Amino acid sequence: MHRRDTEVNTGLIADRYRAIRRATEALAAPLSAEDCALQSTPDCSPTKWHLAHTSWFFETFILEAALERYHSFDPAFRVLFNSYYQTVGEQYARPRRALLTRPGLDEIVRYRRHVDEAMAMLLTRAATLPKNILDGIELGLNHEQQHQELILTDIKHLFSFNPLRPVYRSRVPRMPSSTIAMEWLNFPGGLFSLGHDAGNFAFDNEGPAHKVYLAPYRLASRTVTNGEYLAFVEADGYGRPEFWLSDGWNKIRADGWSRPIYWEHLDGAWFQHTLNGFLPLDLSEPVCHLSHYEADAYARFVGARLPTEAEWERAAQALNVTGNFVESERFHPIAATQTDGALGQMFGDTWEWTASAYLPYPGFKTSADALGEYNGKFMSNQMVLRGGSCVTPQSHIRATYRNFFPPDARWQFSGIRLACDA
Amino acid sequence: MHRRDTEVNTGLIADRYRAIRRATEALAAPLSAEDCALQSTPDCSPTKWHLAHTSWFFETFILEAALERYHSFDPAFRVLFNSYYQTVGEQYARPRRALLTRPGLDEIVRYRRHVDEAMAMLLTRAATLPKNILDGIELGLNHEQQHQELILTDIKHLFSFNPLRPVYRSRVPRMPSSTIAMEWLNFPGGLFSLGHDAGNFAFDNEGPAHKVYLAPYRLASRTVTNGEYLAFVEADGYGRPEFWLSDGWNKIRADGWSRPIYWEHLDGAWFQHTLNGFLPLDLSEPVCHLSHYEADAYARFVGARLPTEAEWERAAQALNVTGNFVESERFHPIAATQTDGALGQMFGDTWEWTASAYLPYPGFKTSADALGEYNGKFMSNQMVLRGGSCVTPQSHIRATYRNFFPPDARWQFSGIRLACDA
Amino acid sequence: MHRRDTEVNTGLIADRYRAIRRATEALAAPLSAEDCALQSTPDCSPTKWHLAHTSWFFETFILEAALERYHSFDPAFRVLFNSYYQTVGEQYARPRRALLTRPGLDEIVRYRRHVDEAMAMLLTRAATLPKNILDGIELGLNHEQQHQELILTDIKHLFSFNPLRPVYRSRVPRMPSSTIAMEWLNFPGGLFSLGHDAGNFAFDNEGPAHKVYLAPYRLASRTVTNGEYLAFVEADGYGRPEFWLSDGWNKIRADGWSRPIYWEHLDGAWFQHTLNGFLPLDLSEPVCHLSHYEADAYARFVGARLPTEAEWERAAQALNVTGNFVESERFHPIAATQTDGALGQMFGDTWEWTASAYLPYPGFKTSADALGEYNGKFMSNQMVLRGGSCVTPQSHIRATYRNFFPPDARWQFSGIRLACDA
Amino acid sequence: MHRRDTEVNTGLIADRYRAIRRATEALAAPLSAEDCALQSTPDCSPTKWHLAHTSWFFETFILEAALERYHSFDPAFRVLFNSYYQTVGEQYARPRRALLTRPGLDEIVRYRRHVDEAMAMLLTRAATLPKNILDGIELGLNHEQQHQELILTDIKHLFSFNPLRPVYRSRVPRMPSSTIAMEWLNFPGGLFSLGHDAGNFAFDNEGPAHKVYLAPYRLASRTVTNGEYLAFVEADGYGRPEFWLSDGWNKIRADGWSRPIYWEHLDGAWFQHTLNGFLPLDLSEPVCHLSHYEADAYARFVGARLPTEAEWERAAQALNVTGNFVESERFHPIAATQTDGALGQMFGDTWEWTASAYLPYPGFKTSADALGEYNGKFMSNQMVLRGGSCVTPQSHIRATYRNFFPPDARWQFSGIRLACDA
Repeated sequence: MHRRDTEVNTGLIADRYRAIRRATEALAAPLSAEDCALQSTPDCSPTKWHLAHTSWFFETFILEAALERYHSFDPAFRVLFNSYYQTVGEQYARPRRALLTRPGLDEIVRYRRHVDEAMAMLLTRAATLPKNILDGIELGLNHEQQHQELILTDIKHLFSFNPLRPVYRSRVPRMPSSTIAMEWLNFPGGLFSLGHDAGNFAFDNEGPAHKVYLAPYRLASRTVTNGEYLAFVEADGYGRPEFWLSDGWNKIRADGWSRPIYWEHLDGAWFQHTLNGFLPLDLSEPVCHLSHYEADAYARFVGARLPTEAEWERAAQALNVTGNFVESERFHPIAATQTDGALGQMFGDTWEWTASAYLPYPGFKTSADALGEYNGKFMSNQMVLRGGSCVTPQSHIRATYRNFFPPDARWQFSGIRLACDA
Repeated sequence: MHRRDTEVNTGLIADRYRAIRRATEALAAPLSAEDCALQSTPDCSPTKWHLAHTSWFFETFILEAALERYHSFDPAFRVLFNSYYQTVGEQYARPRRALLTRPGLDEIVRYRRHVDEAMAMLLTRAATLPKNILDGIELGLNHEQQHQELILTDIKHLFSFNPLRPVYRSRVPRMPSSTIAMEWLNFPGGLFSLGHDAGNFAFDNEGPAHKVYLAPYRLASRTVTNGEYLAFVEADGYGRPEFWLSDGWNKIRADGWSRPIYWEHLDGAWFQHTLNGFLPLDLSEPVCHLSHYEADAYARFVGARLPTEAEWERAAQALNVTGNFVESERFHPIAATQTDGALGQMFGDTWEWTASAYLPYPGFKTSADALGEYNGKFMSNQMVLRGGSCVTPQSHIRATYRNFFPPDARWQFSGIRLACDA
Repeated sequence: MHRRDTEVNTGLIADRYRAIRRATEALAAPLSAEDCALQSTPDCSPTKWHLAHTSWFFETFILEAALERYHSFDPAFRVLFNSYYQTVGEQYARPRRALLTRPGLDEIVRYRRHVDEAMAMLLTRAATLPKNILDGIELGLNHEQQHQELILTDIKHLFSFNPLRPVYRSRVPRMPSSTIAMEWLNFPGGLFSLGHDAGNFAFDNEGPAHKVYLAPYRLASRTVTNGEYLAFVEADGYGRPEFWLSDGWNKIRADGWSRPIYWEHLDGAWFQHTLNGFLPLDLSEPVCHLSHYEADAYARFVGARLPTEAEWERAAQALNVTGNFVESERFHPIAATQTDGALGQMFGDTWEWTASAYLPYPGFKTSADALGEYNGKFMSNQMVLRGGSCVTPQSHIRATYRNFFPPDARWQFSGIRLACDA
Repeated sequence: MHRRDTEVNTGLIADRYRAIRRATEALAAPLSAEDCALQSTPDCSPTKWHLAHTSWFFETFILEAALERYHSFDPAFRVLFNSYYQTVGEQYARPRRALLTRPGLDEIVRYRRHVDEAMAMLLTRAATLPKNILDGIELGLNHEQQHQELILTDIKHLFSFNPLRPVYRSRVPRMPSSTIAMEWLNFPGGLFSLGHDAGNFAFDNEGPAHKVYLAPYRLASRTVTNGEYLAFVEADGYGRPEFWLSDGWNKIRADGWSRPIYWEHLDGAWFQHTLNGFLPLDLSEPVCHLSHYEADAYARFVGARLPTEAEWERAAQALNVTGNFVESERFHPIAATQTDGALGQMFGDTWEWTASAYLPYPGFKTSADALGEYNGKFMSNQMVLRGGSCVTPQSHIRATYRNFFPPDARWQFSGIRLACDA
């Protein structure tokens, strides 16, 4: 949910709306109608559904609220493309999203046009719109950016089941990468103010700002590489219970995990499935697509631990938001470069699992309307990730941003930054 | 598997090949790429998969065997479109057929063309082809007809999950139908020869011909109607265990069945999902899409029973193969018309569940090659159905034809003909 | 259900009642209260439950029907110990039978005494009891004998999970056994009368007598041995799909079967769990505890098949009911001995899987009362076994007896007799 | 795991050992052999297993480490009664604990005697035992007390499935209870030291002591009553998604929860299953056996929240450990009495769900040996509960004690204390 005190530059919002909506469609452009229609697990959604649901969001929360005579594209979509808003009403069952051959991709493109035209009309009078509507539009744009990332994570997962090994975007030729040394950087303890409080947009779960006491700690200067994680795999890390949380151990035994989800060992060499195709494993790149269980086990294997979200955020407060984001169009993390004693890769490349459960900050309240369901009700059984990834839009991420997934989720671009006590 | 003594008219086979292949494509013509890509349950397959698998059949069993220099369209298809032939090799997991966005429908159409061209070339010398190749082609054509029916049953099931209620083919306006009286027709007992023995093509499971002793019995002159079955529903038939086989009762309790799969009760009226759209229930039409459990329970409700397959076949031996088949393009069963004491609806409209388990006839042998897997290995936990349906090609069905499904299957066009002891 | 024309010698029935009830208790005597309370799968029941349910049968169907002032031991038992009689009312859920710590074994022994005393009183006037009551008592005694066998099969299954390897009854020292040659015995074809028709007690599913036409066939002179089946295991029989029914293959892959349920391979030698303890595998003994899938696959492996139940019964009609039954107190099958061209082991040792589905005979009707549920409603998805086993009471078995289990069941004493076409 | 700096009064430890071991057996005394052998879910264990496992703990971690010539009672028990210690070796599968009819209760009582005698001998020289052995004994005694509580929670769950409604201990007649008013008590904010640091025994997860900053808050003066929770049930609380965490809502829909686990509504009145039998619901008693989801939903329903564990512990630091514990032999929570503005029921009656995930405190380390598995590996997907219950031994609980269960667990004596921001 959006914050009440968001400052909206009404002059720019129509431009931003257009740019973000077009960016979504550009991500879907390389995909066929069939690519857009399928779903590999209930956690993932068809691209087509993402395209429709983000439009549904503007239709339901903005157009129907702000335009008296708004004519909905198709009343059945209210149920079909509702993700989880109980307050709005019924939802079509999530695991069945890939049973819907109709509406087809063409019709959903028309649906987007319909919503865009109504939004364009509405935004001509942005300067006079009530604050709650402007806040809602801002939330809708950030929501659309989240689904941009999900389009890429979900299509990557779907393609991984195809023995024809589809390529989303061919790789730009690159210089061979090399692995820089990992250093420990020190952070003193004390009482710190964390969380988002004012000014620009943030999701409701990033606030309120609040004080946290931290003991001194250290963070690694970069994320863990494929090469480092491979040492864990080759040391039989998946066969040694002493490194694993009990739930993690049960999970890897039950499901037969023995390596990261997209790695394959063929004829003595390691490969990985990427959005650039099926490629040899680059040992210098950040390891990616780990569950929290794997990230935590690796940290124990090397005698370290994951950072808490407070440790991470406090260290990130001083940094600019730069890195390898979706705008690079690599759709894959890249090897760290020398940072001269500074923190590298904090933003972009891979989301970084923290040791913190996703729970409300002190004083957190959800709004009473449907948008109160946006974040708060998921504060159970999930862990916080920080920093964004190579498929996150740069303008979407910030130091206070809290992403969250269950500890066994591994289809996101999620990796490891190590921490330890000072 | 085909029979060894099939007589193939080599002059006509090229024409038949073209006609049957085109008929398959005509059935897929009203469907979008997305319609063709999805799968509602592991029992069903995407249309696209049916289109490819039937081509795979000719490629694998005919072209690769008969043409020395045949160049396969894509070697990966050998696994992707193998249904269940262990002798051929690995199969892509059946429940994952709807994870394959690629090859797309366009590419599969090209695959069909590729196979068709090679087959056309081969068939120019049909007169000199060895018998086993000709038999294999005949089997491939009958196999393709089976998948024609499955394309329709599977797309009907898939559409049933869509709240937009897609229509496969709009209904031709029809006269209101009326229900004719059901009569009991008598058949004397004795020793009869059943099963297929010689002459035209038949599947291996239809033979050998063999003697069966039958006691005198009666068959109903037509199939059970929606109106008659509705009386069972309204008499709380699904809530009264005395009518049900134990497995059937457990199934309907566990899955909450209370009516035929495609029936819905809305605002006091009954409707059914059909390939012609969502329509009011016509009480004179044959009841359809029942499981064996439901057919058996209904028969007990009215104090009758299902016929054995021997009773059915012996009665059908004297009849012409006429009725409401896929060629009528109705894609739906129609009400019986007056028959003046003769058996009506034995062929077409709905498959008729029998009281017979699907087991080998005395002396049945499977062939040692891959095609030996066609029928024989499924002779467990299934029941026999007879007579074809409104989505069966007329040239595909005959009195000896044995269809088979597990007793809980209800997505086929399966209905009820009653029998009783004389 | 019992047959209407049973002749009951009322003078002997009180003696038989006492003898059969005592035999049940003798089987439970070596077991502790805890042994009697547990259940290894929903297919099995606790010994305690068998002891109670057989008493419930007499209480519900005889005492409450025949004695006006019968005082039930505990009204709650009507639900607790109802197995599956919907007509009687609710049942305590079968998979939860091992959640009932109370009533304890002591109380169930008192329940048996209570029922036995009332039955003893009733049987003093056996000569004047109505036929339906006498028939019901006869059925109750046969029912109790079925549960005697189940006590042994179920406790064997339960003990198999215990690493302490409990022994039900220590083995009597025996001479080493040797394997006699298997011969094929010929049976001519023709029209035969099969099934039970009159005279002594039989279950309803054994009739009516009816005519069946058989082609000439052969039966093996004895059952398949452990040594012969071991050759199948060692030839990778469980890894070769060509021998298996499709459902069987799916089952053994899904559940990881690679040998008979009670076999273990330790340090290069084969052992099996028996009621006599954990013993080296005796290669001359009949192979036992196979599913129908395994029996069928073995038959294909050696180029034979399973007999139909008609072929089996016709051959058994001429034989005396002798063999290794529960009265031998071996609780284990023994090696065949020389038979000089006659059929051996047709009765006792192991049940013999047939190729026949368990279906009603022509003209079969169930009775309208609760006892009509005894057999008829299970005629779906099961296969017929014939001949009894080493844990069947000798007086319980006969040539027409039809036992039935689903094709994947393997905790019964079930083995293989081979057949082939003549 | 125990703390390294525990002070052990070696003079008293032999007495404490005897007392705690006898207390365990006293709890099992009212139970039959069958009661002790069964298991209602994989989360619960048979009483027999608890009796054996607690002895296994002393045998494995103390006797085998401290006595050179210790002769184990039965080597097979090393696997059979290992709960989850991977470092010790294999474990018998937890869901199969109720398949072990042997060893019987009698043999397990002999096992306890065997261990007790060896421990008594060892404790004669307690003054000279190394610190790690003394620490291990202290841990073993606290471990045994945890299983005392589990014996009662597990038998309560098991009895709940029995329609005979077994009574563990009849209720002592009591005065009718009345509901006192709930008050909000204020706590100022600031930086506080929490966690256990020195002196007496504590589990490893209670430390290290560390600083936490708290904003001002309020706690309810007593726990929520049955009457208050009933208002939530009657307001359709289980049907209104706005009160529920998303995971909680999915759980209650999937499993059909509509009331606390042991409540039943019969003929218009509410009852609950207790260890004192099946009793009318006392509206003044603390509501009990709630999952975290239910506790959290109730708090939202009344516009409050659950306390964090830091808020709870800071408030409890000033209190004496008094309340309704297992020593009262009520085995059931009792209504709160007037407290004159002080916190009531903080210890005993019901465990209190907090809003805190079970995670390591800053600086937490597990020990490298097997006992390092005691607590740390469970720090995932669980929530912290505080304060002990009516089945917790008084000497076992303290302000720093952290209990933990998954948020859907409801077979523990778990209730609600409300909190809110000041």
